[in-house]
Amino acid sequence: MAKDKKSSIQVKTPKGTRDCFGDDMAIREKIFSTITNVFKLYGAARLDTPAFELREILAGKYGEDSKLIFDLADQGGEISSLRYDLTVPLARYLASNTSISTIKRYQIDKVWRRDQPAMTKGRLREFYQCDIDFAGQFGHMISDAEILSATRDVFERLGWEGKYTIKINNRKILDGIFQVCGVPTDKLRTISSAVDKLDKSPWEEVRREMTEEKGLDAAVADRIGTYVVRKGGRDLLDALKQDEALSVNESAKKGLEDMTLLFDYLENYEVLDRISLDMSLARGLDYYTGVIYEVITEGSAPPGGTSKKKASSDDDRSDDPTVGVGSVAAGGRYDNLVSMFSGKDMPCVGISFGVERIFSIMKMRTAKTPAPNPAIHVFVMAFGDGMIKERMRVTKTLRDAELKVDFSYKDKPKLPAQFKEAEQKGAPFAVILGGQELSEGKVKVKEMGLPEGDPEKDGVLVQMENMVQEVQKKLQAWRVKTGISQVNI
Amino acid sequence: MAKDKKSSIQVKTPKGTRDCFGDDMAIREKIFSTITNVFKLYGAARLDTPAFELREILAGKYGEDSKLIFDLADQGGEISSLRYDLTVPLARYLASNTSISTIKRYQIDKVWRRDQPAMTKGRLREFYQCDIDFAGQFGHMISDAEILSATRDVFERLGWEGKYTIKINNRKILDGIFQVCGVPTDKLRTISSAVDKLDKSPWEEVRREMTEEKGLDAAVADRIGTYVVRKGGRDLLDALKQDEALSVNESAKKGLEDMTLLFDYLENYEVLDRISLDMSLARGLDYYTGVIYEVITEGSAPPGGTSKKKASSDDDRSDDPTVGVGSVAAGGRYDNLVSMFSGKDMPCVGISFGVERIFSIMKMRTAKTPAPNPAIHVFVMAFGDGMIKERMRVTKTLRDAELKVDFSYKDKPKLPAQFKEAEQKGAPFAVILGGQELSEGKVKVKEMGLPEGDPEKDGVLVQMENMVQEVQKKLQAWRVKTGISQVNI
Repeated sequence: MAKDKKSSIQVKTPKGTRDCFGDDMAIREKIFSTITNVFKLYGAARLDTPAFELREILAGKYGEDSKLIFDLADQGGEISSLRYDLTVPLARYLASNTSISTIKRYQIDKVWRRDQPAMTKGRLREFYQCDIDFAGQFGHMISDAEILSATRDVFERLGWEGKYTIKINNRKILDGIFQVCGVPTDKLRTISSAVDKLDKSPWEEVRREMTEEKGLDAAVADRIGTYVVRKGGRDLLDALKQDEALSVNESAKKGLEDMTLLFDYLENYEVLDRISLDMSLARGLDYYTGVIYEVITEGSAPPGGTSKKKASSDDDRSDDPTVGVGSVAAGGRYDNLVSMFSGKDMPCVGISFGVERIFSIMKMRTAKTPAPNPAIHVFVMAFGDGMIKERMRVTKTLRDAELKVDFSYKDKPKLPAQFKEAEQKGAPFAVILGGQELSEGKVKVKEMGLPEGDPEKDGVLVQMENMVQEVQKKLQAWRVKTGISQVNI
Repeated sequence: MAKDKKSSIQVKTPKGTRDCFGDDMAIREKIFSTITNVFKLYGAARLDTPAFELREILAGKYGEDSKLIFDLADQGGEISSLRYDLTVPLARYLASNTSISTIKRYQIDKVWRRDQPAMTKGRLREFYQCDIDFAGQFGHMISDAEILSATRDVFERLGWEGKYTIKINNRKILDGIFQVCGVPTDKLRTISSAVDKLDKSPWEEVRREMTEEKGLDAAVADRIGTYVVRKGGRDLLDALKQDEALSVNESAKKGLEDMTLLFDYLENYEVLDRISLDMSLARGLDYYTGVIYEVITEGSAPPGGTSKKKASSDDDRSDDPTVGVGSVAAGGRYDNLVSMFSGKDMPCVGISFGVERIFSIMKMRTAKTPAPNPAIHVFVMAFGDGMIKERMRVTKTLRDAELKVDFSYKDKPKLPAQFKEAEQKGAPFAVILGGQELSEGKVKVKEMGLPEGDPEKDGVLVQMENMVQEVQKKLQAWRVKTGISQVNI
């Protein structure tokens, strides 16, 4: 068929998307497996939802960023769009499955945003999210504490000890601050999103946006300024509880009580020393109602002083509503999202891990000390006349014993080429066939890369019936020696 | 925010898509992990490609079924469509990565087809495919044999011993048969797709389609009939090699030589007894060039005699080009697909496993003997006054030791409610806290479901510092006793 078609087709991935293979995929799978493992330690189970949802399900959930939703073409039938996050699909799932009253679910899947891509910053149009969410009527702040504990566990297990901070705030406190400072009700959301930019812009610029662009009274803005620049731990929480203006505001009072209990719990979970109470954290998404958080790490923040462009500029959109700029995970409590779809009262709390950014940082860090990542245990090769069927049979025997095995797919490969392929694939062991040895029922098992002079440098002859056992024994010793417990994670 | 929105929104998944959770997900993850494990035994590495591709990349690769491609809306910028399979994206990847000369890749991902859904038959608009493909210049028929061996290994490991058949044929033989029988060159593809319907329609009906609908000479159709109804093993292969008409046809001769070598290899791999050489197998996709195959199993074929509707009927489209009706996996050799995108000569061979159908069959089979599928190892509970912080601390200690642990998220849950939750989650063990015991530095470790009269029915008191060790010891004994090696696979 049509060989003459190659013509003028552009052979590339669509803008803002990319393939992943090889070493990059190995790092990514390491991240996936670490996160999945932690999620399971917390008793969460995997949910799978469709890549696209009815368009009206997604409508109105993402504030200004709804314009970034990828639509499917109208080809007759329902009007759908690619999911923008994994949270709204979960809410839709819970609303349509009325028998579920509590759930602990995780989901690791792609989401899509028609954003201006910035590959170097890890901002793509297609990217993975890893979400864990607990929904249902639970005791006060317990599921919030569990989610934050899981978050800590993920980053500790990724080896980020001491290199990340969980910034935390509470929408109820923020709302209280805005009310106390005199922000008109209709300006609450827009002022909140201005405050959220304090992680990349100085207060003066945020103040200018509030007063000049958003028409806020200058005195109100200044009062806000006295609160939102504050960061701390229990000390800040105690100071806010002493604040007379806040203490008479219902919303702020409630939020501060919540945080006090949460901090108690987080101390239990040994999370508190990773926490920074940050009054400037506001988060863009409309659906949050209580505690909100964002995880930042060394190297995840943009270089200081690069806020030369206004955030409204379309080619440097840095207000990603789910994972803030420089943050590697983000989430919070959203108690009303499910009830937007059905009458069901279903409080939810959860966090989303931004795999692309975690990947970029892990890659940067591992680049200095690349870990060996062998894809196979054994490479089967032969001297002399090809012996393709013999190589196949030996390969089958080893694979039947759960060993990852490869061999040259040439009929009659040369020995040096076979050694080269074994090395390229990182095989720690080779099984070598020779006509003479085979006729005596023997094969050679050789550990690759032994130094000159090692008594086993040229391999060890073993009886065919002992081959599997011999390889497994040597592999075990090799694992102990190298500390590499898994091949091709 | 907008609590008043619930109004008239239809809260459901789009047509032909569905969510997956709970027991269904457990079965699916079992299938995924089995297949992935086999793929890795063969030295294949995972590739990830975008969910959508530039529309022109997909154009013209799927024959008549191109109309089923899901398009993205034109929102400015590139015109893209959701991928229809994982094979064309692989070919695009290979064409655009010119340095790759050989590759062994697998991919487990969703694909999308705007087909008429038939949920009961496992035909959806969104479904998973699990593909393994080997590409590059290899020795003759070696990678074909490896792919078929991997296919055997997948179904054996899924426990389908003796319950599946790999139907196999070769496009070169088929083309030879058609030429020898006198099919005009411009009718080759359409006659081939008529032959492909022999797995669900009797010869008379296929013959009628050839002659009446497709205008084939009746004598030509009759000659085709003498070939395509034949099935067998080496005996059939030998008979075809003796056929005088075929033996002078270049294409048929080449195909028969290929199959002879392949059968030799398959004997080595112990695959031959799972194989049926089937002259009616033609496969719909345009891009195959050599060996083609399809795996069928008990219960995967439609009930006999249901071919009441013509295949052209839109609401019972059964000519899915990748996985044939009733088949659970399908694939073959496609040597020209990569060169359609670039000048690169890159022979490929691979197979695609239809997870939805495998899932339906596994579910039907396991429904009779449901395997226990506990999601957690331990449920932590407390007598008396809630002890929420104590439950948190004990939970953390157990999770730090890699145990999957849950507890009631109520502040002060009643003991019976805690036992009920532990049972619902299938926890094999409980750790029970009591005020008195805790003050003595002790907790109770209890195996769930022990019979009345068992000396450990009420649990065993252990020192807090021995708790982890005690749970691990008991869990190990429980694994041996029950044969359940993994929790929440």
